Amino acid sequence: MTDRHITLAHGNGGRFMRELIEQIFARHLGNPELDVQADAAPIDLPAGQPMFTTDGFIVHPLEFPGADIGSLAVHGTCNDLAVAGADPLYLTLSAFIEEGMPFDQLERLVQSIARAAEETGVRVVAGDTKVLPRGEGSGVYFASAGVGVRRHELDLGLNRISPGDQVLVSGPVGDHGVCVMLAREEFGMRGDLKSDAASVLPLTRAIRDLPGLHFMRDPTRGGLATVCHEIMHATGLRIVLDGPAVPVHDPVQSVCDMLGYDPLYLACEGRVVAVADADTAPQILERWRGLPGGEQAALIGSVDDGPQRVEVETELGGRRILEELQDDPLPRIC
Amino acid sequence: MTDRHITLAHGNGGRFMRELIEQIFARHLGNPELDVQADAAPIDLPAGQPMFTTDGFIVHPLEFPGADIGSLAVHGTCNDLAVAGADPLYLTLSAFIEEGMPFDQLERLVQSIARAAEETGVRVVAGDTKVLPRGEGSGVYFASAGVGVRRHELDLGLNRISPGDQVLVSGPVGDHGVCVMLAREEFGMRGDLKSDAASVLPLTRAIRDLPGLHFMRDPTRGGLATVCHEIMHATGLRIVLDGPAVPVHDPVQSVCDMLGYDPLYLACEGRVVAVADADTAPQILERWRGLPGGEQAALIGSVDDGPQRVEVETELGGRRILEELQDDPLPRIC
Repeated sequence: MTDRHITLAHGNGGRFMRELIEQIFARHLGNPELDVQADAAPIDLPAGQPMFTTDGFIVHPLEFPGADIGSLAVHGTCNDLAVAGADPLYLTLSAFIEEGMPFDQLERLVQSIARAAEETGVRVVAGDTKVLPRGEGSGVYFASAGVGVRRHELDLGLNRISPGDQVLVSGPVGDHGVCVMLAREEFGMRGDLKSDAASVLPLTRAIRDLPGLHFMRDPTRGGLATVCHEIMHATGLRIVLDGPAVPVHDPVQSVCDMLGYDPLYLACEGRVVAVADADTAPQILERWRGLPGGEQAALIGSVDDGPQRVEVETELGGRRILEELQDDPLPRIC
Repeated sequence: MTDRHITLAHGNGGRFMRELIEQIFARHLGNPELDVQADAAPIDLPAGQPMFTTDGFIVHPLEFPGADIGSLAVHGTCNDLAVAGADPLYLTLSAFIEEGMPFDQLERLVQSIARAAEETGVRVVAGDTKVLPRGEGSGVYFASAGVGVRRHELDLGLNRISPGDQVLVSGPVGDHGVCVMLAREEFGMRGDLKSDAASVLPLTRAIRDLPGLHFMRDPTRGGLATVCHEIMHATGLRIVLDGPAVPVHDPVQSVCDMLGYDPLYLACEGRVVAVADADTAPQILERWRGLPGGEQAALIGSVDDGPQRVEVETELGGRRILEELQDDPLPRIC
């Protein structure tokens, strides 16, 4: 495959497209349900509530320490199903490939998709490829859609949050955002930080059956601050974060200090924010801390019926208001 | 909304993105299942075999006579479910929007999505928006994924095709391809031809329960010729098309004659190719001809165990070999 590149003819429905699909997509993503000659794939669903979601991926650069746009396309969509309380089961993948993209790189990304899907226990059952003229696109964009199944009785949602609830996070925030930023050459910085991109399914499975768990979300674009604003908008309640309690890796904090970013707004791709009643919060902490990736889980705040806003308690005991994200601190992050 | 444009901040997860989703996507696509605050949507499936598919859309220009990239994003994915014998029920929509795109145009396209979904009887239950920097992208790309349900007993597929089967098409070929081409300014041509983009669900519903129906496919990228090659590759059989029997609108044929295109390779977005046994073929013709959009349905060829290739009988009684599409006659067609 060395030295081969994607051409516009790889998108026209003819021989080159058939070969691209056979040699790269079907070869690495092959499974009994993936019939590249079919228009739609039959999927068998176990008992429970089927759930459906989608996500698009334009991260730049395409590859960075710890992950790439391929694994992100699997984890991003599966994590949306996981935080909704479901087991992700099936994925579809739509690829928008730029003319001139090296076959080698595309193949690495598809291999990464295959690995991430296997780790998460999902199967890619259908796909589509389109080729964009050189200059449009930047290598490749992916859109993935996922179907999963949730236990019928499970009731999680913003509507279940009430005053007195506690807010928890499964691990340090901002690793993914800083890692992608450092991987961009324009910043001229290098670090040994890795993206946190991963399946959060083990974390959600471990706690989703606790009756006092009210809500879960993965803090991606806009970070932890944005999840707090989503809760605030939906409930009309106040969220008070305990600033020093929010786990942040030292190198992430250092980069943020240097460049003037607030880690609370930076994207994670492998963390979970949970909201639960006060009795349940310690159980969540205990369960998460016993899992890989959950060692630094922390209780980071609470919900009350004070004025509708998001506040952060500072190290010195003061409080600042955490504004809703407006300008873009880090575009193309997922 | 006049004079407003998409900015990078509309993709960052914060306030502008929330407003974009509320004011355009949720406003026009609203339905009980579309909860823009949720990570994944619960979907209720009737009895039967669930089917899952996806499709990407990069058509240029975004709007053209008879359709646009929005309605195409609905019909393309729903038609894949329809030709697989399923009733499409739920869609997800992933939008990649270029910085600078006018709000007005995006809103028109989302309204078109809403209309097409209502006509087809599907609901858009989840979505995602990403913003591409100006110059990347060309207005907007969409990826849609669809879930539908097929009757359990229904058995359609390339594996059911055998020698003696007849090939039918539900209407004239190439309208969509020529219409999109004429809408591109570089051709300097104008016509009153409209795209055939439409839901094929009424056409597939009308015939899918005939036991002698073996296979259906919508001839999109690569056109009728490509569907014939897909059948040939999968079955090892010969397909013989009756050239003069293939319905082609006069203006499509004229444009093809002028520019040197073969209508057999041009995309349709609202036609169905069916393969059935000889007893069933006349029943399909009769049912299709009684439906809007099926008036010009025709028996256009047959499958036999001659040498593995696609042949076309010409008006003069000769035969030519229809080669597999290699170079791209019309990129960015869907």
